[in-house]
Amino acid sequence: MKLITGGVCAAKGFKAGGIHCGIRKNRTKKDLALLVSDVPCSAAALYTTNLVKGAPLTVTKAHLSDGIAQAVICNSGNANTCNADGIEIAEKMSDLAAKELGIKAEDMIVASTGVIGQPLCIDPIAQALPDLAKSLTDNGSDAAAEAIMTTDTIDKQVAVEFTLGGKVCRLGGIAKGSGMIHPNMATMLVFITTDAAIDSTLLHKALQNDISNTFNMLSIDGDTSTNDMVCILANGMAGNEKITEENEDYATFMKALNTVTVQLCKLVAGDGEGATKLLECIVSGANEKEIAKKVAKSVICSSLLKAAMFGADANWGRVLCAIGYAGADVDVTKIDVAFRSVKGTVEVCKNGAGIDFSEEKAKEVLLEKEIEILVALNSGSATACAWGCDLTYDYVKINGDYRT
Amino acid sequence: MKLITGGVCAAKGFKAGGIHCGIRKNRTKKDLALLVSDVPCSAAALYTTNLVKGAPLTVTKAHLSDGIAQAVICNSGNANTCNADGIEIAEKMSDLAAKELGIKAEDMIVASTGVIGQPLCIDPIAQALPDLAKSLTDNGSDAAAEAIMTTDTIDKQVAVEFTLGGKVCRLGGIAKGSGMIHPNMATMLVFITTDAAIDSTLLHKALQNDISNTFNMLSIDGDTSTNDMVCILANGMAGNEKITEENEDYATFMKALNTVTVQLCKLVAGDGEGATKLLECIVSGANEKEIAKKVAKSVICSSLLKAAMFGADANWGRVLCAIGYAGADVDVTKIDVAFRSVKGTVEVCKNGAGIDFSEEKAKEVLLEKEIEILVALNSGSATACAWGCDLTYDYVKINGDYRT
Repeated sequence: MKLITGGVCAAKGFKAGGIHCGIRKNRTKKDLALLVSDVPCSAAALYTTNLVKGAPLTVTKAHLSDGIAQAVICNSGNANTCNADGIEIAEKMSDLAAKELGIKAEDMIVASTGVIGQPLCIDPIAQALPDLAKSLTDNGSDAAAEAIMTTDTIDKQVAVEFTLGGKVCRLGGIAKGSGMIHPNMATMLVFITTDAAIDSTLLHKALQNDISNTFNMLSIDGDTSTNDMVCILANGMAGNEKITEENEDYATFMKALNTVTVQLCKLVAGDGEGATKLLECIVSGANEKEIAKKVAKSVICSSLLKAAMFGADANWGRVLCAIGYAGADVDVTKIDVAFRSVKGTVEVCKNGAGIDFSEEKAKEVLLEKEIEILVALNSGSATACAWGCDLTYDYVKINGDYRT
Repeated sequence: MKLITGGVCAAKGFKAGGIHCGIRKNRTKKDLALLVSDVPCSAAALYTTNLVKGAPLTVTKAHLSDGIAQAVICNSGNANTCNADGIEIAEKMSDLAAKELGIKAEDMIVASTGVIGQPLCIDPIAQALPDLAKSLTDNGSDAAAEAIMTTDTIDKQVAVEFTLGGKVCRLGGIAKGSGMIHPNMATMLVFITTDAAIDSTLLHKALQNDISNTFNMLSIDGDTSTNDMVCILANGMAGNEKITEENEDYATFMKALNTVTVQLCKLVAGDGEGATKLLECIVSGANEKEIAKKVAKSVICSSLLKAAMFGADANWGRVLCAIGYAGADVDVTKIDVAFRSVKGTVEVCKNGAGIDFSEEKAKEVLLEKEIEILVALNSGSATACAWGCDLTYDYVKINGDYRT
């Protein structure tokens, strides 16, 4: 298993591209992405549990009912959500792209991200599609990753190479997400491609199992988006024996998927709106996995802790506080807490009570860009990890005036 | 029912005071409050559901097991939470205060608020108590209200006058709370006094019923404090016939209590850490009360909406989004949303979709200090209200460096 470049085009037979079509006023920012496989793929997707769902999700869900897809179209700058004609527009996007690519409309995945509640005009998309389709290359992951960005400051791409039965396989993904991120059953927008051959039912299962420990453990601001979706396309062009049961190949595939999704989680968390730090809460010693997950997520979601991390303040009382209201059955008198970064580890709490520590050392540790918050529950062997970021002036700035 | 001054000393037979004892370094900020009734009182309290509980809560809970109390001691600047000797210190605070007041230690309510996990030294409290006890007056609500403040910028006092069976009764309260506020079963620190005579079991019931619609509907930052407590003392000195059943007098009493607690909620929300605006989410037309409450609270807790309100941005999509992830069974296609302030009302969403509105008018409405977010679910007759505040640069500033 090795990390490689190429993002969503790392796997054989995938081409991508991105263009500025005019949904955004800023001409230097791409706002329409297209991704296509040479052949139809096994496909699976998971969607936000928000009751207010973007129209594209409804269309995509219908298209994926047969477990097959071949291409993705996604715009940024407008979420096409809470619009009276949302479904109609999403279907048009899908139809136009399919026609341009010469594939079936039912094999299109369609997604939108941006402002909620502003009608999405189809014209710029329709006009740009021929050029966009022409521009598709197996080098196009950069352009696609850029085109799906909203308030993201960096594009997010990860890919790995692995072998299944002697055949070299690749799996890669792109993600966008910076605010309104508190996934529940799914996530911000993530598109993953692989040339491994795998049955679509098993692909769905793999995705579902994976995200419960990855994208569902990620929070920027506690707001679950209306347009969250993670989808995966597997075109089988690597030539491996198709995975149809939970065998060794499936385990290898799961590991490849997890390597990519964990990296994407870290990229998204570290690029959270206004963030200056990536926070990772690592919980160990829980009685049950669910307890570990609840605790990790509660800590990573605490506005107070997030603000303290921004200030490099080792205010561990806020970690204890967040554990206490996590809704998990823990013995608070057994909890140890430490902060860790490349500068070392500082233990700050033992058995639920404060211990002497060097504030100077703590400051040094917390001034780093990647901080681990280590919580030992000392009651069992289950572990979990959650990712988030600090809360900064810039989060407020970005969201105080998003629409204008 | 009329609003009066006097706060926690408005009711007959209550004296209060506050002093700088030295827990805080800043000598101009009082940090120790004392409140006493001339006679023992029916008493009730509710506590945070955070598993990490301040030591004073454990002591208070034990003292209130007989439903009787006579005095309150409360310090700010240190929460006396997650300290190995916490219970011992809380008991000492209680003992020393009781001795000074000449009452039973079991009739003391003890509370602390401030930083978690720093040992609380009893010495400054012990040394200051004689002077503090001497300073108690029936004019001392201001001093007590000030002494319990942490990051609060204004002290919070409310009182009302009402009659029970021809007897003039009074009920008043003080509160502190500015951050780490997302009450669950109780709230930040609130002390309420009344001279009405009421049975302690019924007093407990009254408090419990009231807070489910008041303090439990208040959120500043989603963090449920470890030291939350609301308590009420009823000394019976108004001379009314003791309320022992849920009769008309009980209803009047509930109304008085509710008038005070709603006002305290608004004071706390409007003074949330860094807040520039009081936000009130008023939900109507729900199928069930619980649905209305979930929706109201979800909207008021959304970091994105809070940031938008700071920027006076009518970004109603974030209201819909927060309703969608509230975990309440609502029909999103029936939802109407409007923003209201003293400058008027702007309707922004009808039947779950955007409608044309004047951005200019919306800006004018949202630039005010008190904003109502009106959500009509159009599915039933249940209503609910929740209070919060905007998310600002100053929230980050205050919490980025709270301990130093």
